[in-house]
Amino acid sequence: MNGVLKGDKVVMGDDSVAELYNAQYYGRMRGDVLELTLVEAAYLLDRERITVKRGGKSLDFKGFFIAAAQVQQYFELKYIVYRDLRERGYYVQPSVTDFRVYPRGGKPNVTPSKYFVHVITERKPMSMQQLVSNLQAALNVRKEMALAIVDEESDITYYSVRFHAPNGGMEPIRLSPKKGSATFLEDRVVIWDSEVSSELHRGGFYGNPMDALRLQLSLVEAAYLIMRGNLEVEDQNGHAIVLDDFVTKAQQIEPSFRGKLTTYADLRDRGLVVKTGFKFGSHFRVYEKIESIERIPHSKYLVEFVGHEHVFQMQDLSRAIRLSNSVRKEMVFAFDKNGVQYFSIGRIKL
Amino acid sequence: MNGVLKGDKVVMGDDSVAELYNAQYYGRMRGDVLELTLVEAAYLLDRERITVKRGGKSLDFKGFFIAAAQVQQYFELKYIVYRDLRERGYYVQPSVTDFRVYPRGGKPNVTPSKYFVHVITERKPMSMQQLVSNLQAALNVRKEMALAIVDEESDITYYSVRFHAPNGGMEPIRLSPKKGSATFLEDRVVIWDSEVSSELHRGGFYGNPMDALRLQLSLVEAAYLIMRGNLEVEDQNGHAIVLDDFVTKAQQIEPSFRGKLTTYADLRDRGLVVKTGFKFGSHFRVYEKIESIERIPHSKYLVEFVGHEHVFQMQDLSRAIRLSNSVRKEMVFAFDKNGVQYFSIGRIKL
Repeated sequence: MNGVLKGDKVVMGDDSVAELYNAQYYGRMRGDVLELTLVEAAYLLDRERITVKRGGKSLDFKGFFIAAAQVQQYFELKYIVYRDLRERGYYVQPSVTDFRVYPRGGKPNVTPSKYFVHVITERKPMSMQQLVSNLQAALNVRKEMALAIVDEESDITYYSVRFHAPNGGMEPIRLSPKKGSATFLEDRVVIWDSEVSSELHRGGFYGNPMDALRLQLSLVEAAYLIMRGNLEVEDQNGHAIVLDDFVTKAQQIEPSFRGKLTTYADLRDRGLVVKTGFKFGSHFRVYEKIESIERIPHSKYLVEFVGHEHVFQMQDLSRAIRLSNSVRKEMVFAFDKNGVQYFSIGRIKL
Repeated sequence: MNGVLKGDKVVMGDDSVAELYNAQYYGRMRGDVLELTLVEAAYLLDRERITVKRGGKSLDFKGFFIAAAQVQQYFELKYIVYRDLRERGYYVQPSVTDFRVYPRGGKPNVTPSKYFVHVITERKPMSMQQLVSNLQAALNVRKEMALAIVDEESDITYYSVRFHAPNGGMEPIRLSPKKGSATFLEDRVVIWDSEVSSELHRGGFYGNPMDALRLQLSLVEAAYLIMRGNLEVEDQNGHAIVLDDFVTKAQQIEPSFRGKLTTYADLRDRGLVVKTGFKFGSHFRVYEKIESIERIPHSKYLVEFVGHEHVFQMQDLSRAIRLSNSVRKEMVFAFDKNGVQYFSIGRIKL
């Protein structure tokens, strides 16, 4: 079967419609004429199923590949992803994103496609807004969103992105604030009162014991407890600090404090137990429920708050997801838009 | 035993010299007088071994702690690290860094101290230059350098930092450059010639096969092979690209290219096999030797090139080291100062 390279399409002869289009779902019909995308044509050319001419001269694979790369940005990346998916038995069609992929065993005109796949080089950052709007677009037509990230050595990693609303089973804590029980020190809060320490730590897994009597709270923990009327915190001169002043001070210490606090409060209000995720390089690790501090279960999520203007670097994303996988937690990103929203990103085999 | 808080010291009475200083190595003698640091005094006060007065009035633990926090920056962090080390049986003394720590079973005046410990809040970034100069200072007096990083919930993670010069067992590859065998596409290089592909991939684990015939090289791989006279790369019009032009183009695509290439070349010249570390969120994963591409061994190191002006964020450092631990690789940072130098950072129990 013979085709002609015209712009970013390969126009096939009539003889190819039955075999390529009807039987195997390559290309699209424009009137009576079958047009292949550049990746489809490269794939068929490599398998010696078609020949391609340009200006009357036949192109070999190398010639076609270089020509295609000159016409289409990231052609070589799209090609290796297309090839990988086709070779593993998926039907793949062009789409507003890079590809629509049919579920294993499914095919065009019979089954709906399952994934919108975005092909991304590891070098190209992706803004959070773009990611969320792509995710919304996929959901609107009931597709799942997948990223195919191609690293500098052309290895592909597939990620699935989903909205996610975690919920937990903890009852909120009820304490009466006790004067003089807590002091805001340099960048944390110390609870001096051993009863308050014990109730906070045992009742809600708040803070970290400094010793048998005293508890240390992080800034978000203390702010949340003040906000929900459970705690009074004093400055070093013994004056009570109101919530607004506490938040202002904390924000000076930690530039992402407000976003972290909004996320922390939303997660706690959802009945989850939220602790620092520092050892895992994210803001929080999150437990669904803690029955007893003598038996701390496995934490289920790592949660990272990202500002609305955040831009994901693929290398950072890769490291975060790889780490969360290796410790068997789900990597969740939180952002604040009319309330806190969450999406999780995880590796998929596809 | 009674002491008096004076500035950033607690001055003890004569009766304490024998018990605290001679027997247990607390404090330092200034003439005949024993002076405790603030953390030492807080520790002894908590254990009710001493009392402390200020202006004639006794201070309880809370009062002393707040007073100390007002005098010394990061007092509460230093205190919890000091307490942690002491409670686990280490002798700890003040030092130009925060603490000198004696080896388990060792003690002052008998054994040399082993570690210089730096106490760092997770919120405070650390410049590479400062880290390297601290490491050099510790080495000059034959100490090991340890970081005690305190997270927002006051959990401590100890890291050891060491210079490191990895070496491998691979012979360099010897190939005669073949005209027309390789093309620089958008952000990678494709090898069209199946013999060259095979020799590069099988002989040095270069590149990633696009298919049975062709190989894709990353930019650093291609640049290194050009640099060592093994490869000729053409542009899309078939003109050979000289090394300088290749590097200039690659640098436009990837701003950290020169640093990466310097590191890549140094590691390859040391007989190591260097591949992308993208899946682990670092620049390279490194193998000591690969006998056969049918049996790829476990890679031993993750290597990240950092510029001379780099500033480590503790959260990023924590994530990188945690990930490298979880995949049983050593985390190594490379920088270029009169040649490429390496240091590794890993968790220690201490």
